[in-house]
Amino acid sequence: MTSNTDLRVGVIGTGLIGTSVALAARRIGCSVRGWDHDRERTRRASGLGGLEEAGDLEEAVERADIVVIATPIPTIPELVARALACAPDAVVTDVGSVKSPLVKATLDAVPHTDAVRYVPGHPMGGSERSGPDHASASLIDGIVWVLSPSGISDPAMVDRLEGWVRAMGAVSVRMDPERHDRLVAFVSHLPQVASTALMSVAATEEADEPELLLLAAGGFRDLTRLASSNPGLWSDILLSNRDAIADAIDRYVAQLERLRSQIAERRGTEVEATFAAAQSARLRMAAKPKVRAGVAVLQVELPDRPGALAHLTQALGDGEVNIEDLQISHSPEGGRGTVHLTVAAADAVSAAEALSAAGFDPIRLA
Amino acid sequence: MTSNTDLRVGVIGTGLIGTSVALAARRIGCSVRGWDHDRERTRRASGLGGLEEAGDLEEAVERADIVVIATPIPTIPELVARALACAPDAVVTDVGSVKSPLVKATLDAVPHTDAVRYVPGHPMGGSERSGPDHASASLIDGIVWVLSPSGISDPAMVDRLEGWVRAMGAVSVRMDPERHDRLVAFVSHLPQVASTALMSVAATEEADEPELLLLAAGGFRDLTRLASSNPGLWSDILLSNRDAIADAIDRYVAQLERLRSQIAERRGTEVEATFAAAQSARLRMAAKPKVRAGVAVLQVELPDRPGALAHLTQALGDGEVNIEDLQISHSPEGGRGTVHLTVAAADAVSAAEALSAAGFDPIRLA
Repeated sequence: MTSNTDLRVGVIGTGLIGTSVALAARRIGCSVRGWDHDRERTRRASGLGGLEEAGDLEEAVERADIVVIATPIPTIPELVARALACAPDAVVTDVGSVKSPLVKATLDAVPHTDAVRYVPGHPMGGSERSGPDHASASLIDGIVWVLSPSGISDPAMVDRLEGWVRAMGAVSVRMDPERHDRLVAFVSHLPQVASTALMSVAATEEADEPELLLLAAGGFRDLTRLASSNPGLWSDILLSNRDAIADAIDRYVAQLERLRSQIAERRGTEVEATFAAAQSARLRMAAKPKVRAGVAVLQVELPDRPGALAHLTQALGDGEVNIEDLQISHSPEGGRGTVHLTVAAADAVSAAEALSAAGFDPIRLA
Repeated sequence: MTSNTDLRVGVIGTGLIGTSVALAARRIGCSVRGWDHDRERTRRASGLGGLEEAGDLEEAVERADIVVIATPIPTIPELVARALACAPDAVVTDVGSVKSPLVKATLDAVPHTDAVRYVPGHPMGGSERSGPDHASASLIDGIVWVLSPSGISDPAMVDRLEGWVRAMGAVSVRMDPERHDRLVAFVSHLPQVASTALMSVAATEEADEPELLLLAAGGFRDLTRLASSNPGLWSDILLSNRDAIADAIDRYVAQLERLRSQIAERRGTEVEATFAAAQSARLRMAAKPKVRAGVAVLQVELPDRPGALAHLTQALGDGEVNIEDLQISHSPEGGRGTVHLTVAAADAVSAAEALSAAGFDPIRLA
């Protein structure tokens, strides 16, 4: 049997997600061919070393074991149909953020004999950026990748896709399309709507109060970061999942109205109880190690003086540990700074050893 | 005339903000005495080297030029009155997040002859954390510090406070109490309510769908970070500014309902236009240099290999530059990583020189 590391992979659509998947597949040794209707985009993606540029879809998927369709939602059904027809042995998946209507439309567009090889999917990564230039194999590390088999997906095909997804460092979760759509409405689509609506309200006020955004500190910036996401992409996603999103917005509005009444009617004890319950849920979530699978997070206390961070990063460099992410939480004068380091899970032990040898006292958080 | 650097400062309330102000005042050479009704908290604050521990409020403010009341809102009027009475030459300010009702209550509690030395204020810093252990002088760097003189504040006292605030590295903005309250309702209080309500909704759904938060990626985490803020503190703030907040929530709900209709009725062009307007407002805000006054942000491209970050931080350490914050935006395999460095504005040139000398190509963003 072919191992995950020498599969032939075809990627259709070389934007942020398609190119990141291509880079992650290359990283584990797969051969990857890519194609995008925008040739310039494929060229930029192949410049990152992730894939071999194909002249058309047929060339990209020829003799493939796995095909990933990473294009805007409206184009997916037709591209899945073409890929299934051109690559008779491949499992074909997509990365659409909404599954139920997409799966229905795709099954309508594909002959039943081919459709058993279609396994819908959704890697829950991405960011407010887009395009191959922001792509990275590390975007796949530890993300949750939902597999949403249709009623007729061949179990062997689901297994093949799942093995490959896991080999690339993602955490696979199986979930039927309807359930997927209901859940992402709350944790992905509603946050996007909440962020955009908040930015809209502030922008409207700013017209009368030019100093408004001068007062906007970290909290406002955190909450509105998503508002810089791609409008066309999001319009497609939101319309495709409109029923679940309308329901999620209704529940959100109801909760806002509830809080509004508690505040306006000076029911302080209730406001405090609402906040305490949300605080406890948020802290529980932060502690969940599953969310960070694939990477390890180390916390290190560090004196706040020039050179201290250099000493730390030098120790990791000497230990051949690559730093995936690093954040300094606070840098108190005369006190201690706290650094949170993210490294590949496989590097966690060598990172801790290198840091201890250099006189630091790392704590593994996740 | 006394310069800003040798003022005598009294800090009442040594939590996150009070202790951070004390550390920032110490940093510019002021002598600082502090007191908190919780003696253990004053002890921890003085352990950070920021202040001399006083036995009571009277001792903390004796012969002070400036007194900062950094305690919960309900306690402020009485403490301002006591500080004004005990420190006959001092300007007394507070850091309450809501100004209008607080100023009224304080003026009611203070004789007119003293009240002219009361200059209400609001440093727009803080975070979801609390307590002196998370305090830092760097929390004051570049933040906007609103001064909200009452109708009777002595202009000379306002000037003294403003000079000191600027000397510590904050950006001072004068704004009357009512306007302050209306604006912070949108950029500070509404984001907190939006974040807590989103976390509440997700927590309620999670009861039926235990896998819900497994699907929560970066966007959801960004939007709910504020939900871990202190419930008691926020209940006080929200109730104090209830009219402005109720109005801000109403506008937010109206915008959410508008988006909901656009989505549910499949008016894709309108959804896209709403998103595009919010995106453009958000990008405009990110580019505003004023928000980041006091610090400089440098962007550096960096090869993704063990030791690269060490090379960079070593160069800064050799140049005696202290790193306030550092974030790696992406770490693509075989591609480039982007590092955003925050340093004190005064260090920006030496940081850029040190990086260039080490072969990097830094770009100053702010």
